[in-house]
Amino acid sequence: MSASETAPWSREEFHEKLKEKGTSYHVYHPFQIMMTEGKLTRSQMQGWVANRFYYQKNIPLKDAAVMANCPDREVRREWILRMLDQDGTDGDAGGIEAWLRLGVACGLTREEVRSEEHVLPGVRFAVDAYRNFARSRPWQEAVCSSLTELFAPDAHASRIESFPKHYPWIGPEGLDYFRMRLTEARRDVQHGLQVTLDYFKTRAQQERALDILEFKLDVLWTMLDAMYMAYISQETLPPHKKYALTER
Amino acid sequence: MSASETAPWSREEFHEKLKEKGTSYHVYHPFQIMMTEGKLTRSQMQGWVANRFYYQKNIPLKDAAVMANCPDREVRREWILRMLDQDGTDGDAGGIEAWLRLGVACGLTREEVRSEEHVLPGVRFAVDAYRNFARSRPWQEAVCSSLTELFAPDAHASRIESFPKHYPWIGPEGLDYFRMRLTEARRDVQHGLQVTLDYFKTRAQQERALDILEFKLDVLWTMLDAMYMAYISQETLPPHKKYALTER
Repeated sequence: MSASETAPWSREEFHEKLKEKGTSYHVYHPFQIMMTEGKLTRSQMQGWVANRFYYQKNIPLKDAAVMANCPDREVRREWILRMLDQDGTDGDAGGIEAWLRLGVACGLTREEVRSEEHVLPGVRFAVDAYRNFARSRPWQEAVCSSLTELFAPDAHASRIESFPKHYPWIGPEGLDYFRMRLTEARRDVQHGLQVTLDYFKTRAQQERALDILEFKLDVLWTMLDAMYMAYISQETLPPHKKYALTER
Repeated sequence: MSASETAPWSREEFHEKLKEKGTSYHVYHPFQIMMTEGKLTRSQMQGWVANRFYYQKNIPLKDAAVMANCPDREVRREWILRMLDQDGTDGDAGGIEAWLRLGVACGLTREEVRSEEHVLPGVRFAVDAYRNFARSRPWQEAVCSSLTELFAPDAHASRIESFPKHYPWIGPEGLDYFRMRLTEARRDVQHGLQVTLDYFKTRAQQERALDILEFKLDVLWTMLDAMYMAYISQETLPPHKKYALTER
């Protein structure tokens, strides 16, 4: 192996390699493309909101796991902002509540969303894999796995633009979550990025970081695969189970 | 709620309820039906063998987790037979080795199978969910989750019959795994069934047992969903990743 293959990338090169992974972000998944183009039915959109809630509710557990493994107070003081954002505080309802409101704005009941009755097994397994990764790996690796936030603001902005156009039946409060995350995600990713650029030093470590980011991209992609199979292609639905939501 | 809704099922009724879950066993998945009917291409069959290896290699880890949580020596003395079967002993190559031989009989290399290079994210997340369940839940629940073995002998018998007919290019040693499991699974399931029928006593517990069995059925079904999407429908393949195996 030549020296150039094993020499570490510069900080800028490494940052660039991380950003290049964005070409596999789930905004390019056929389910997400249908959403942006206004092609989802009401019940398919409800299915997405109900399933994605399982991701939302696991984010603070993931973030607590990062802090549970992290002896660095400075990092915890920064990372705790994510939990405060998602769980909320006295003056702020928080991201999970905002997602529940999106559910209601889409015609689901709060109880229905919270019950997880619509959560597909494939979605559950993928989200649990992410949470278990954060529990069982060094905290810097868990931080790195959060870097799909690099690509999130564009996705949120596109939903804020396309939902009122294509899905006017979604109440306006349904967009609050995406508006909040537009700013929060930009702040979060700066911190996660600094930790990652600082920690993964050797070329082998930097390549490990790319693998971790790819694992997280696989989590998001696989969640949409499960929704595509259950709500769109419907070719392999298990017998004796009803996955599709009722049109109402 | 009436007394009949909350009264526990008799041992026989409970056993019957467990068996009824077999209607959702993965033998009814479109991918498995194609396999039995001889409709898989060589590379699709190779994909199945390579992915299912990830399940095989995790079985002894799952079984060790059951024993790690089990203070009952009698149960461990019985359960350890599963690890000996799968990992092998001096006189017996074991199930994992038999599966590697199936891989070679299908035209893969041992290294290729062991490398996990063909293992799909959705398969990995589902198998890991099963292993994590066994690690984190009481050992009796983990035992209950193994009860898909109730339905396995018929599946193995059907492969022994259909492979030589439809896939004559698979070498005869490729069937060894299924032949071994025909007898082993019958013994294993008797033990797992006794533990389950003994432990889940109240109606609520019995219903919990059915949910656990359904979780495990979801694991097996979701594994085939991932293979169906990657090798058959191919509608949501991620960009920049090559999932399909090369025909050779």
